[in-house]
Amino acid sequence: MDLGFETIAWSSSGGVRFLDQTQLPELEAYVDVASIDEMVEAIQSLRVRGAPLIGIAAAMGLAAAAARAGSRLTPEWLERAARRLGGARPTAVNLRWAVDRMRSVADRAFERGATCATLADELRTEAQRIWDEDAAMCQAIGDAGAALVRDGATVMTHCNAGALATGGIGTALGVIYAAKASGKQVRVVSSETRPLRQGARLTAWELVRAGIPVCSIVDGAAAAVMAAGDVDLVITGADRIASNGDTANKVGTYGLAVLAGAHRIPFYVAAPRSTFDISLAAGDDIPIELRAAPEIGAAPGAEVYNPAFDVTPARYIKRIITDCGLLSPPYRTSIANIFG
Amino acid sequence: MDLGFETIAWSSSGGVRFLDQTQLPELEAYVDVASIDEMVEAIQSLRVRGAPLIGIAAAMGLAAAAARAGSRLTPEWLERAARRLGGARPTAVNLRWAVDRMRSVADRAFERGATCATLADELRTEAQRIWDEDAAMCQAIGDAGAALVRDGATVMTHCNAGALATGGIGTALGVIYAAKASGKQVRVVSSETRPLRQGARLTAWELVRAGIPVCSIVDGAAAAVMAAGDVDLVITGADRIASNGDTANKVGTYGLAVLAGAHRIPFYVAAPRSTFDISLAAGDDIPIELRAAPEIGAAPGAEVYNPAFDVTPARYIKRIITDCGLLSPPYRTSIANIFG
Repeated sequence: MDLGFETIAWSSSGGVRFLDQTQLPELEAYVDVASIDEMVEAIQSLRVRGAPLIGIAAAMGLAAAAARAGSRLTPEWLERAARRLGGARPTAVNLRWAVDRMRSVADRAFERGATCATLADELRTEAQRIWDEDAAMCQAIGDAGAALVRDGATVMTHCNAGALATGGIGTALGVIYAAKASGKQVRVVSSETRPLRQGARLTAWELVRAGIPVCSIVDGAAAAVMAAGDVDLVITGADRIASNGDTANKVGTYGLAVLAGAHRIPFYVAAPRSTFDISLAAGDDIPIELRAAPEIGAAPGAEVYNPAFDVTPARYIKRIITDCGLLSPPYRTSIANIFG
Repeated sequence: MDLGFETIAWSSSGGVRFLDQTQLPELEAYVDVASIDEMVEAIQSLRVRGAPLIGIAAAMGLAAAAARAGSRLTPEWLERAARRLGGARPTAVNLRWAVDRMRSVADRAFERGATCATLADELRTEAQRIWDEDAAMCQAIGDAGAALVRDGATVMTHCNAGALATGGIGTALGVIYAAKASGKQVRVVSSETRPLRQGARLTAWELVRAGIPVCSIVDGAAAAVMAAGDVDLVITGADRIASNGDTANKVGTYGLAVLAGAHRIPFYVAAPRSTFDISLAAGDDIPIELRAAPEIGAAPGAEVYNPAFDVTPARYIKRIITDCGLLSPPYRTSIANIFG
């Protein structure tokens, strides 16, 4: 599917080129980075965002910086770079997962006594593989989830779990693109997603590009839209899923899940294998990033509480749509099966 | 209670002076209006807002314009002015209620053959009475509701139902001010209230002024804050309450009510008698204002659905806190009693 933009790519100069998502929808501006510092900044400032995409971006950034490091590419250099990239944001486990894959490649190369040039090549190959695999996982998620979307359905989603959040067609939006590709008419209700407005800015932007009708609402209007009978199902992405199915995703997701339950609307989470953290027993163990107060812009003197994510307990999730198919409750069993 | 600002007042030139709420919290700017056109614009653009306050502002604006009209103050002039003010916004019934009171005063004066000067005086007296009564109703609401707030409680509220929304100490915030005045420590969680951010801009501003600790969150974070056990009760204002207790209030209120229910947190509505519309059987009959798309700022090409209000069914409301005391379900009976 060609949406006419490139979320991420290798740049001709050997760096990583990506769409600066803080500028959308006003500007379609691309940024080219080649250092660890720049990539960490880009991830922390959300120029590049979306759980799967920040994993890909970190891996590509590590590969690009390693190529530039030349003879400075020692185990210490790599360890430090990996730690900085892996710690850029705390909640999405894909970031740590991708960086760990890169580190394994490096560890094996260092053990073999590979040259810096060879290691840099292998890192680029691994980063490309992480990207390619993510694109394939998105397609598989889309194919697995498309059957849940009937012809003529209206799907509510939150934040952006689309082509802008992944290396492929997206997770939640991947399901919508796949449903459309199979000939169904689909309409999307996109909640704004304060404070950074990824729904209104990014999801609406990419769906307009894709020719899919999208209606933008403020987060507070979701309940009224559900009560009016205008939502057939809700699908969101995920930043980290614990082994019992509890799911961390953009703040507001948990509220939508509760509201969907109250209106008897099925609530689905779409995510690739890289989003699962089977080392965690439950959602309580997922670290939640707290972001800076100015993102909300409250009156001076007010305290601000600005968590970037919340945790939706598994009991609110009807199915988890993965590249390994649809997972059903009890999730402890169905998740264990795909990692078995 | 002196918060150091005047929400509304008569200006020295005989017009109506009010705090331009679209400028807060950046600027504390006052506007002086004396014509029907200016007051309609101020109400529609939300320079002056809050269900009780727009009733007061319309009444005061009508009186000020009538005083200026001199010999043009005919039944036709008054009818036209009242229709324009009463129709400036559709949802809050206080607006129509206040304008109807002004019209009754005028009708009686015209029947008596009163002079224009006498009528103008009587209109100003009636507007002042509406304002004074609202201030008294706010105090009575606060006194009735304060007992619901235990010492040390955290109260979540939405939008602004405070001194900035009324002619007195507010409705929902009036309860908080009264609880504080009775010696209790109270903390407030204020949801931002997109799209126009009355929570982050106005509620946080006036609570900081009042020395009450306030924590600002985005609307989407309300569910997570409730799940964390950080909210003891929710109190909101109302724009119109039907005879069965169904309540229209700022969009997002209904979602908070459902979420409060799911977390076993009591949900209260605070409103004066002027907010009840006993001509309506249920909330379905309340007209909901749809506002312009640019308030949301979605990507170009996206449809926008921007209702200013939603309706909370009575079953989610534990008590309605009024100037006539606390109303309990079944509301059809308890509401009928206060209008009996």
